[in-house]
Amino acid sequence: MDPSTSLLEIRIRFCETDLMGVVHHANHLVYFEAGRVDWLRRRGITFADWARQGIHIAVIDASVRYSKPVFFDDLIVVETSLAALRSYSVVFSYVMRRGEEQLAEGSTRLACVDTHQKLRPIPPDVVRALRSPELPGSPSGAPGT
Amino acid sequence: MDPSTSLLEIRIRFCETDLMGVVHHANHLVYFEAGRVDWLRRRGITFADWARQGIHIAVIDASVRYSKPVFFDDLIVVETSLAALRSYSVVFSYVMRRGEEQLAEGSTRLACVDTHQKLRPIPPDVVRALRSPELPGSPSGAPGT
Amino acid sequence: MDPSTSLLEIRIRFCETDLMGVVHHANHLVYFEAGRVDWLRRRGITFADWARQGIHIAVIDASVRYSKPVFFDDLIVVETSLAALRSYSVVFSYVMRRGEEQLAEGSTRLACVDTHQKLRPIPPDVVRALRSPELPGSPSGAPGT
Amino acid sequence: MDPSTSLLEIRIRFCETDLMGVVHHANHLVYFEAGRVDWLRRRGITFADWARQGIHIAVIDASVRYSKPVFFDDLIVVETSLAALRSYSVVFSYVMRRGEEQLAEGSTRLACVDTHQKLRPIPPDVVRALRSPELPGSPSGAPGT
Repeated sequence: MDPSTSLLEIRIRFCETDLMGVVHHANHLVYFEAGRVDWLRRRGITFADWARQGIHIAVIDASVRYSKPVFFDDLIVVETSLAALRSYSVVFSYVMRRGEEQLAEGSTRLACVDTHQKLRPIPPDVVRALRSPELPGSPSGAPGT
Repeated sequence: MDPSTSLLEIRIRFCETDLMGVVHHANHLVYFEAGRVDWLRRRGITFADWARQGIHIAVIDASVRYSKPVFFDDLIVVETSLAALRSYSVVFSYVMRRGEEQLAEGSTRLACVDTHQKLRPIPPDVVRALRSPELPGSPSGAPGT
Repeated sequence: MDPSTSLLEIRIRFCETDLMGVVHHANHLVYFEAGRVDWLRRRGITFADWARQGIHIAVIDASVRYSKPVFFDDLIVVETSLAALRSYSVVFSYVMRRGEEQLAEGSTRLACVDTHQKLRPIPPDVVRALRSPELPGSPSGAPGT
Repeated sequence: MDPSTSLLEIRIRFCETDLMGVVHHANHLVYFEAGRVDWLRRRGITFADWARQGIHIAVIDASVRYSKPVFFDDLIVVETSLAALRSYSVVFSYVMRRGEEQLAEGSTRLACVDTHQKLRPIPPDVVRALRSPELPGSPSGAPGT
């Protein structure tokens, strides 16, 4: 697998469905975020790190293409990849699958901002971590979400 | 109406339903909270006030009894009342109705804590506001939630 | 105002924020949906209508651009417009504002599917309603969400 | 461990926090539900089973006591137990822990209803399954929720 990609399993919750009997479409952004958090953790980046450096990460755009309905209790996989890395922002792309079947894909652009919502360059050590593969011994069976 | 009671209309959102075709039961706590926030606003208490005094309000227990299913697009009313006021905590009770029909009822106990999660007495001016009726000219047709 | 546009006020809920102190980005899709449901209601289209005709409306793609943070208790306006209408799908676009300030914009494409998730043309009477302005006497002060 | 108890690990999601920096209190009902769904799956009961028999399970009351704040990225354990089993309803109790530390506890009562929301006795084979321990070979490391 591409070193810029990581996989996270997620079990679909009852409350994530709607009256159509399928997962409500806003939840896909939640699954993408869970994939992204896990992707970062596998490269040694945690939210605490950002906070300690006084930086915040804000989602500045997001898009999703929905191809198949997702159902309660499905065990899905979110495949998260680093798609672009610039001075002030980073793009992650996502593919959601159930077995071999692709359910959705999407991407989000995130930017570094300080506490006054001003753009700041991504710190060098974060850039290094973003460019690295999963750390050896990354928890591959970690509970989804 | 009892001066310790206020009403808030809420329109049920699509995403709040689940695959049973009715509102998912965790949302009732969200509607109660919306009722409570509105109740406080009508007595001149806003979240900004709490924050400025360095206090936080934490929910320490909650209970809900569900009597009727609630549906997408229903226009419900949350009736929020102050049920008890002690030095360190306050209890609100709630009744949810659709027209004359009672849908659910419940209560939540909230406590004042400082930033280290230590209990603190409710400040005197907040106690005064909690004991007061709605301010004259309270927005009665304010958008729900 | 353009007859293909309608406005909905929404009060931001406490639970819609995240630990950054601002509205979590997945909620924007929820606000857009509330705007869309209200847009349809103002033209005489309700979910019950769809259901009676055995058709479902599925979101097939969605995108959001976030320009400003949104805060707890903000009173925002979602401006929903019909952006495109084809045989099998319809695109709505959205602008979210707080006063004069634009907070976000986005769009969603929806398609008609039957109970087997097969694409179906949008029924003629729905097309007619989608092309019409708000019905006279549409509730303009309806509780948001 | 008591045969009427099962454990589920859950990783706390970013979007489950609120502006207080901790998990929003309505989410505890979501974690309890995830624990209950997993408890049932480990005894061979799936939602599909209920649906096939034309029965629905509705939450008729719920209560939560919150003792400690829960944080983003915490890995918690939900301990779900069958607390009471009657002809028409069943009570589950829950304890949420982070390591040795108890975070919250609660319970929910669920009742069998048919599609017209009328109470129905719990079917005999479901009663049998509710009284049984985890099936041998139950997936103990299954991704949380």
